[in-house]
Amino acid sequence: MVRNGTHTVKSYEQELGQLRAMVARMGGIVESQVARALSAVAEHDGDAARLVPEQDPEVDALERDVEALAIRLLALRAPMAGDLREIVTAMKMTGDLERIGDYAASIARRSLRFDLADGRISLSGLRSMGRLVQENLRRAIDAATQQDADRAMEVWHSDQAVDDYYTALFRSLVTYMMEDPRNIGPCTHLLFIAKNLERIGDHATNIAERVYYSVTGDNMTGSRPRGTGTSSVDAS
Amino acid sequence: MVRNGTHTVKSYEQELGQLRAMVARMGGIVESQVARALSAVAEHDGDAARLVPEQDPEVDALERDVEALAIRLLALRAPMAGDLREIVTAMKMTGDLERIGDYAASIARRSLRFDLADGRISLSGLRSMGRLVQENLRRAIDAATQQDADRAMEVWHSDQAVDDYYTALFRSLVTYMMEDPRNIGPCTHLLFIAKNLERIGDHATNIAERVYYSVTGDNMTGSRPRGTGTSSVDAS
Repeated sequence: MVRNGTHTVKSYEQELGQLRAMVARMGGIVESQVARALSAVAEHDGDAARLVPEQDPEVDALERDVEALAIRLLALRAPMAGDLREIVTAMKMTGDLERIGDYAASIARRSLRFDLADGRISLSGLRSMGRLVQENLRRAIDAATQQDADRAMEVWHSDQAVDDYYTALFRSLVTYMMEDPRNIGPCTHLLFIAKNLERIGDHATNIAERVYYSVTGDNMTGSRPRGTGTSSVDAS
Repeated sequence: MVRNGTHTVKSYEQELGQLRAMVARMGGIVESQVARALSAVAEHDGDAARLVPEQDPEVDALERDVEALAIRLLALRAPMAGDLREIVTAMKMTGDLERIGDYAASIARRSLRFDLADGRISLSGLRSMGRLVQENLRRAIDAATQQDADRAMEVWHSDQAVDDYYTALFRSLVTYMMEDPRNIGPCTHLLFIAKNLERIGDHATNIAERVYYSVTGDNMTGSRPRGTGTSSVDAS
């Protein structure tokens, strides 16, 4: 009876650890997709660009595996309180990670469609925005794997900075298009790349909000400005 | 004992019905947001545009309520098989609906930033795309509330048509920009509106895939072309 009880507890802990490991692995792959996508744009690196979409199937498979294990845990272990929140958060978080991977693939594929070799268009703004978004994504994934509410709060606080970068970038790209019609093609792609980056930052913030809820049981979103016309999905 | 058992079963069914009702209500609000956003663009209807973001807080609150009830059901009822899948699907589906509401708000707010009164730019392509996306969203929500795998499959099959509309629209808008620099401002907004519509269609397809899984226990995504460079998030 006791041995059986011990055994059950132990293998439950093992399964929970396995769930955390799968989420951490999924996060690592998605981080590398974003890093490659950004160097594909900044260094016009076609090899990096082609590698990013190739990682999609692995990310999609991990999302399905996490969901399957989470459902197994929910069905067979009936976890309570903190464990229950962590399992549900893992399940929802993989949705954000899968979208981030899609956005990275979208950025990478776009980078192959234009060439800025003539140097008419500066990418410094996009580079800075990319660094901040990567930093936020890394912190959000760390917060999740370490169940760290403070790190999650850091990500949440710097979401506004990402939106500000995006708005500045949007204006400068439209200006380039006005100045010279030859800029319209590449700048249109750059506008979408900037928007995809902004969305990646938005999903990093979603992850941070989910982790904060998982750890504390409280909703961070309550204090986020909503319905005031500042939804980050709308930044432009 | 029996009375107690009956009582438990009955109130479990009631809670499951309550979950379905909340998801249906959330779907209804989001559908109305998309409809208003599209007439805000097509009829340049400022009142409709202002109403859409005002519905955001209600949608966000419903998402949290569904998650709270789902967690209650998972924790206290330990549902199995079909019920378990339906509860998990409801939880993930609200994430798609919440994003669709954000995209609708984004479209509505953008519609206030430009005026096509001079008729230089035709919106017929955008109108057709909007009708198809609305139809897909309605079918996806019906599929969810009726747990209808066939309807879900219909949505999934017409996702490609949405992407084709988007690609054609993208090309025509870039052409407008090339023709006349005065078109760059409005066409940039219309490019993002078209992209937001394409994303709404993408989330409708996600919902359809989730419903199919919830009803059948099988993954529709297995047969979807993935990692081949045709992720719908990348359509351009």
